[in-house]
Amino acid sequence: MNNMIELARKFGTPLYLLFEEEILKSCEKFKNSIEKNFGKNAMILYASKALSCVGLLKIIKNQNLGLDVSSGGELFTAIKAGFPMDRVTFHGNNKSEDELKMAMEYSVSRIVVDNNEEFENLLNLSKKYGRKINILFRINPEVDANTHKSVNTGKVDSKFGITFDQARKNIRKILEQNLVIFKGFHSHIGSQIFDCKDFQKEAETMVRFCSDIKNEFGFESEELNLGGGFGVKYTDENPEIEIEDFISSICLVLKKECGRNKMNMPFIYFEPGRSIVAKAGVTLYTVGCVKKTKNKTYVIVDGSMNDNPRFVLYGAKYKIENISEKNKSSNFKEVVLSGRCCESGDIISDGCFLKNPKRGDIIAVYCTGAYNFSMSSNYNKIPKPPIVLVTKNGEAKVIVRRQSYEDLISCEID
Amino acid sequence: MNNMIELARKFGTPLYLLFEEEILKSCEKFKNSIEKNFGKNAMILYASKALSCVGLLKIIKNQNLGLDVSSGGELFTAIKAGFPMDRVTFHGNNKSEDELKMAMEYSVSRIVVDNNEEFENLLNLSKKYGRKINILFRINPEVDANTHKSVNTGKVDSKFGITFDQARKNIRKILEQNLVIFKGFHSHIGSQIFDCKDFQKEAETMVRFCSDIKNEFGFESEELNLGGGFGVKYTDENPEIEIEDFISSICLVLKKECGRNKMNMPFIYFEPGRSIVAKAGVTLYTVGCVKKTKNKTYVIVDGSMNDNPRFVLYGAKYKIENISEKNKSSNFKEVVLSGRCCESGDIISDGCFLKNPKRGDIIAVYCTGAYNFSMSSNYNKIPKPPIVLVTKNGEAKVIVRRQSYEDLISCEID
Repeated sequence: MNNMIELARKFGTPLYLLFEEEILKSCEKFKNSIEKNFGKNAMILYASKALSCVGLLKIIKNQNLGLDVSSGGELFTAIKAGFPMDRVTFHGNNKSEDELKMAMEYSVSRIVVDNNEEFENLLNLSKKYGRKINILFRINPEVDANTHKSVNTGKVDSKFGITFDQARKNIRKILEQNLVIFKGFHSHIGSQIFDCKDFQKEAETMVRFCSDIKNEFGFESEELNLGGGFGVKYTDENPEIEIEDFISSICLVLKKECGRNKMNMPFIYFEPGRSIVAKAGVTLYTVGCVKKTKNKTYVIVDGSMNDNPRFVLYGAKYKIENISEKNKSSNFKEVVLSGRCCESGDIISDGCFLKNPKRGDIIAVYCTGAYNFSMSSNYNKIPKPPIVLVTKNGEAKVIVRRQSYEDLISCEID
Repeated sequence: MNNMIELARKFGTPLYLLFEEEILKSCEKFKNSIEKNFGKNAMILYASKALSCVGLLKIIKNQNLGLDVSSGGELFTAIKAGFPMDRVTFHGNNKSEDELKMAMEYSVSRIVVDNNEEFENLLNLSKKYGRKINILFRINPEVDANTHKSVNTGKVDSKFGITFDQARKNIRKILEQNLVIFKGFHSHIGSQIFDCKDFQKEAETMVRFCSDIKNEFGFESEELNLGGGFGVKYTDENPEIEIEDFISSICLVLKKECGRNKMNMPFIYFEPGRSIVAKAGVTLYTVGCVKKTKNKTYVIVDGSMNDNPRFVLYGAKYKIENISEKNKSSNFKEVVLSGRCCESGDIISDGCFLKNPKRGDIIAVYCTGAYNFSMSSNYNKIPKPPIVLVTKNGEAKVIVRRQSYEDLISCEID
């Protein structure tokens, strides 16, 4: 805590901190779990949409994880980090032609094809470039996971992937073409999922689908990507997920279903993003003022929905502390933690308990490593905070510097 | 329409267009309305949080409007646009010390003080710099306007301004200090307000408060800033506001209340933002794929909640057209207009009617001039679209260029 106050003093606030040790711990957990359950027959792909920057991707690379990128920009960042392209998959529900070309040029390991138009586009590009690329086809598994509607990706009506029926209709074409190498299927049921049964259902559904495809078309899926979505404990309202238990349970279902359907176990991918980086992040703010209204107390900090839009988007909750207030008393006050944007909705928490909040205090919001920097904006023309990596040796390294006012207008043409 | 398709071809999509003629029209309406009602005794301040870039601010400057900035970044942009500082007010509910210094250094016309801590801070800075700055104090008028909770700023519990009682308690101190020049009060009841009665109530409330302050403390407010919030017609669900009627009605209330309270009419400010630029903006997208699920049709474009987060934030509705589809038939299909982000919530409209949507079509989303570019993000590391200004002479000028991949990592330190 003292250390965080020193970091706030040294680098200023608002400030994103990223603790390497936490990242390494999560990577280890995932690596050990898959090795124990699948041996060499599985791979963890870090989903870089959660947080993508060169400094972080180098850590992920050195942990020998794979990478899932969701755009040309994320692929570009991976290239800058020297990420081996044979461990990179390219994702997204509407990739542009330029992005597909880029993915082919850099020979990413797999392209996850989302829809038929994209598949046609890819065939044309493969013909044009005389290159065969490995693909997985994304299927909507129609598993309605218990999570926020904005991050529930696999229910009946979803913009992601194609339906089982559409897949069946297209499979002949996919199999008959000789331009891309069809490796198997991908599915992803959403984010912040705490019930392992949702993943088990997904695994079961996908193996059965692969078996049907094998029986109907003679095509055996070599690979199956089950996506990510492992829930992260933000507050005491969330349970703590044991990654190893989840992976074991999913593995059991896969083995059972493969056995029952007389299929070889395909090579398995998982795509955790949040569960790799969320807990490694802490955001520090300085209190500007404390304001009492008729029914509420507002604690207003120097950050905003710009650096953390997850409350305004999903009503997300965080563990929040006044780390300046050292006394041991239990003089906690329920407050609304608000930002500095000219917008009433600019709230970071609509109800958290802080000890004696006052101007100048440093507030820590925990578990902000995922979907904070990556979703950040410059609303009100407020510069984005820097990311300081606290290495496993305790060094503090700026891996993303604070934006300057000049940065804010760097694309403006006079 | 043909012209917009040409612009899409020339500059690529997604693309923000900004039509100068519409901006000029809105500026004229506001200028004429205040001149007719207040003569020289009022000023329009464009609220640049709606959209701030040098190219736009130069137009606003040449229209002789004033400017309201909500941060150091917006002030910096105004400086770059050569905006005369004697027409700039500085706003925000948690200005940093650096921002207050900047506002003093550049001699902005007025600082709108939001709270007591900021007032103390400002007094210290004034002492230190030996500079007297003009201030207004922001009051929460406790007028609960009929609008979305995220943009309702003046109800009983709000993070903005201080209450009447708090103002009364502090007013002696404000009056007795000799370090800043106290000009009067500011209030703002919210955004997207269509009922003039809300503004009339605000005006009445604020004049009565000024009168009370005059009677109790002998201080006559020279100035009164009534904020902005004039509703904009996005779709047929919204009425069309006649700015002149609104301003006249507000003026009548002000005159009546000033007369009744034997007060001189203060100098009046209005701060429209959205109502100046919203209608001037159109966003163009290209359809990547059309996807049928059990109950819905998804039209997926190359933009996203990154360039327009107003649906995910407020459920905002827009007029949307397929401008590629020229046939006169009425073959409209109800679709979900989705973006390309890896997030289910990435929706631009959850139900709009498009004519024969198919891959390659250009989709126009109207009325995107305000709170689109200004709230945009790089989620999924997707570059921000450019802004092309279509001048009153019909020229197309890039005023903000498209971000490159290099731009996306320009603050990263390896």
